[in-house]
Amino acid sequence: MRKLAIYPGSFDPLTNGHLDLIQRASKLFDAVIVAVAKDTQKNLLFTTEERVGMVKEATKDLKEVTVESFSGLIIEFARQKKARVLIRGLRMISDFEYEFQMALTNRRLAEEIETVFLMPSEGHQFISSSIFKEAGLLGADISSFAPDHVVKKVREKAKRRRKS
Amino acid sequence: MRKLAIYPGSFDPLTNGHLDLIQRASKLFDAVIVAVAKDTQKNLLFTTEERVGMVKEATKDLKEVTVESFSGLIIEFARQKKARVLIRGLRMISDFEYEFQMALTNRRLAEEIETVFLMPSEGHQFISSSIFKEAGLLGADISSFAPDHVVKKVREKAKRRRKS
Amino acid sequence: MRKLAIYPGSFDPLTNGHLDLIQRASKLFDAVIVAVAKDTQKNLLFTTEERVGMVKEATKDLKEVTVESFSGLIIEFARQKKARVLIRGLRMISDFEYEFQMALTNRRLAEEIETVFLMPSEGHQFISSSIFKEAGLLGADISSFAPDHVVKKVREKAKRRRKS
Amino acid sequence: MRKLAIYPGSFDPLTNGHLDLIQRASKLFDAVIVAVAKDTQKNLLFTTEERVGMVKEATKDLKEVTVESFSGLIIEFARQKKARVLIRGLRMISDFEYEFQMALTNRRLAEEIETVFLMPSEGHQFISSSIFKEAGLLGADISSFAPDHVVKKVREKAKRRRKS
Amino acid sequence: MRKLAIYPGSFDPLTNGHLDLIQRASKLFDAVIVAVAKDTQKNLLFTTEERVGMVKEATKDLKEVTVESFSGLIIEFARQKKARVLIRGLRMISDFEYEFQMALTNRRLAEEIETVFLMPSEGHQFISSSIFKEAGLLGADISSFAPDHVVKKVREKAKRRRKS
Amino acid sequence: MRKLAIYPGSFDPLTNGHLDLIQRASKLFDAVIVAVAKDTQKNLLFTTEERVGMVKEATKDLKEVTVESFSGLIIEFARQKKARVLIRGLRMISDFEYEFQMALTNRRLAEEIETVFLMPSEGHQFISSSIFKEAGLLGADISSFAPDHVVKKVREKAKRRRKS
Repeated sequence: MRKLAIYPGSFDPLTNGHLDLIQRASKLFDAVIVAVAKDTQKNLLFTTEERVGMVKEATKDLKEVTVESFSGLIIEFARQKKARVLIRGLRMISDFEYEFQMALTNRRLAEEIETVFLMPSEGHQFISSSIFKEAGLLGADISSFAPDHVVKKVREKAKRRRKS
Repeated sequence: MRKLAIYPGSFDPLTNGHLDLIQRASKLFDAVIVAVAKDTQKNLLFTTEERVGMVKEATKDLKEVTVESFSGLIIEFARQKKARVLIRGLRMISDFEYEFQMALTNRRLAEEIETVFLMPSEGHQFISSSIFKEAGLLGADISSFAPDHVVKKVREKAKRRRKS
Repeated sequence: MRKLAIYPGSFDPLTNGHLDLIQRASKLFDAVIVAVAKDTQKNLLFTTEERVGMVKEATKDLKEVTVESFSGLIIEFARQKKARVLIRGLRMISDFEYEFQMALTNRRLAEEIETVFLMPSEGHQFISSSIFKEAGLLGADISSFAPDHVVKKVREKAKRRRKS
Repeated sequence: MRKLAIYPGSFDPLTNGHLDLIQRASKLFDAVIVAVAKDTQKNLLFTTEERVGMVKEATKDLKEVTVESFSGLIIEFARQKKARVLIRGLRMISDFEYEFQMALTNRRLAEEIETVFLMPSEGHQFISSSIFKEAGLLGADISSFAPDHVVKKVREKAKRRRKS
Repeated sequence: MRKLAIYPGSFDPLTNGHLDLIQRASKLFDAVIVAVAKDTQKNLLFTTEERVGMVKEATKDLKEVTVESFSGLIIEFARQKKARVLIRGLRMISDFEYEFQMALTNRRLAEEIETVFLMPSEGHQFISSSIFKEAGLLGADISSFAPDHVVKKVREKAKRRRKS
Repeated sequence: MRKLAIYPGSFDPLTNGHLDLIQRASKLFDAVIVAVAKDTQKNLLFTTEERVGMVKEATKDLKEVTVESFSGLIIEFARQKKARVLIRGLRMISDFEYEFQMALTNRRLAEEIETVFLMPSEGHQFISSSIFKEAGLLGADISSFAPDHVVKKVREKAKRRRKS
């Protein structure tokens, strides 16, 4: 049976840590959908279109990977796509607790869907989208935290903010 | 001496995890006041009256349990009620740290009041009010997370939101 | 490509938590080898043969699952079996840290092998082989912690110990 | 109904942290039995009699407190004493996880017994019996870590070790 | 070579925990700059001027210590001051993870600057600015949490809030 | 005043993580003594002389660094050397808790000595002496975990073990 996995997140924006995880997932499963959350309680820097666009650009050479946006419950999106696996990255203890709570909630809501945790590679473990954004908006050299086209996008946002 | 305990929280809304803890506390102490915080920095879904009402409904058969709302410091409320015990639930490490900080602060402010930690039962450990609310507002089947009358109330809120 | 996963451990003895994880893994991958460590620094209650035997008995109806013992580095065993995935269960924070350290070490030693973390089901999260053994040897009713044939084996050990 | 609580441990030896917890427990419950474990997997410095003796000496003025040794499962001892409450202290995250696992195991073995967690006072949070013993045996000034008669006992052990 | 250290934070307001850390840092390094962040995502109670003023008042007798405000990246401020050390306090696990992430990010942005972690003294470990503020605004006796002139300032804010 | 720091440990054997920390410490303080513990409760692979020798070899070009062995309390050794600073590395949460307990105990025993925590660089965070040893004795390629002369020594031990 073809194994389809979904990697959900807000990707605001994509970091090298996310990209590393997508590559790992694409080797484990037959197909991976990166699912970009439309509605999120977080204060977003980028629009849904921008976020989807950045992930598409970064994954264009990975033929097992597609990118879509979704709203509502991730398990409903997974069911609709007939995916049986959710991918989540674990970097830190605090991730761990929140992710566990979410995974157990999702399991109760949809027993047939399994959450699988992967570990990003060493150099990407401490990168978080929020610290990356904050550093970028303050003008730091963020070129090692994300793909070039994402770094460029963050710099444009920073420039526009300084003007206003 | 009659031992009176207070179980404070925002209960926005009551979950089966809270209810399990109230039942456990009611067996340990002669009387338990569930104290619903009026002012809270969290973004609330329900009014104080709704939150108090849901807890009252769920605990109407527990004769040792009463429900009240309070504002200001919980230790002042406890002193006024002549309670010597605060009840808190521990589910996760992140709970643990925050609860410890609060308990040590409360102890310094009111040495005579003891904070007692209880553990919800296995099936309720991962339920948090916030994940429960989020899932409910997005239309998930949340019937195993809270008493029926609470689930109904969350569904009504969800319906009203979708309309607006 | 056929995806083969290895689930290594000491299984001294198998618990319902382990069994739950084996079942989850068997749905995610085309084949799963449960790899029972011969040499382990832990103080073992059962011999390698006994431990392998108990896992075999418990998994005899899972056709994707085979059981083998191994010695030396798990990554060497994985390479020899041409497996690309190691399965590990995560129950608690302390697991998390040790597992992360091992997984990062294994990744450095064998970049091509991915460690995948799964979460046992709610009711099995707090069961550890060591607490299970201790309770069993002291005569507790351990029937909900492991398959029947394992519970029976632990009780036999307890009986023999009390005699000597 | 009279509420009886049991505070189990190895008390090898009693520290000021333990004593603080016993005092707190004695205010919350009608009677407290300090239960000193005879069999423990830890490498003990003191005999069961010495450990019981030190706790008795330290608690002789607390009329709600009695001291006994026990072997086997703590829940069996609690049942025999008709106690419904187990007291445990929480100081650190690592305590938390182990204590949680034990408490959930005990709850499954004996649903009617509730584990209640208390927090030692600020100045005693970091004291562990093992660090205390190690420091004492190496000749450190340990007078603020335990009652005088315990400190004296540890010093005697240290003297005897240096001689041999 | 003269060793200059920077202790950055929002200090909204200064607590006895912060002051304890400043004193410890001033013994380790030849000079310490307390760097008060102008822009912070937190909801501030005091203005930059008030926050700087309170730290200055509290440290006026420590001749190695100066107080400045800064905006932008802390590593840029450190470079400008030719400081090679950032001081951070560690009280809890949750501190630990966030601080680690920040320190590793800062190290990647400025390899020559070392983050050094110190531990506040026992009695100040659980004090956080946010709990202190909350308790103070609700009228609690907060005199043991911060220097007198800070306590007075928080009380004035509380009075003004109650009036409005 | 000349600032002298002590970096204590068992160094059984020295890893690249330790070496990274020694280099960082040597930039922060005027002199650093690496203090190799003679007596340790751990099961050691190398003798005191071997452990001291490996650290000396690795640090021979760092002129601020000297290597000594010690027995008894580290704070007594520090006092004897007139050192005011103990250096400890923090890699993980479990380190954090144990290190905190030790540091608070040491502070109570010797108020004038400050424990300073440093963070090893990214690539060395997950290396522990025990995992390194275990992997080395089992024949893994451990060349990236420690300096060449240490790797060679571990391989010799492994060879001798396989023969016996």
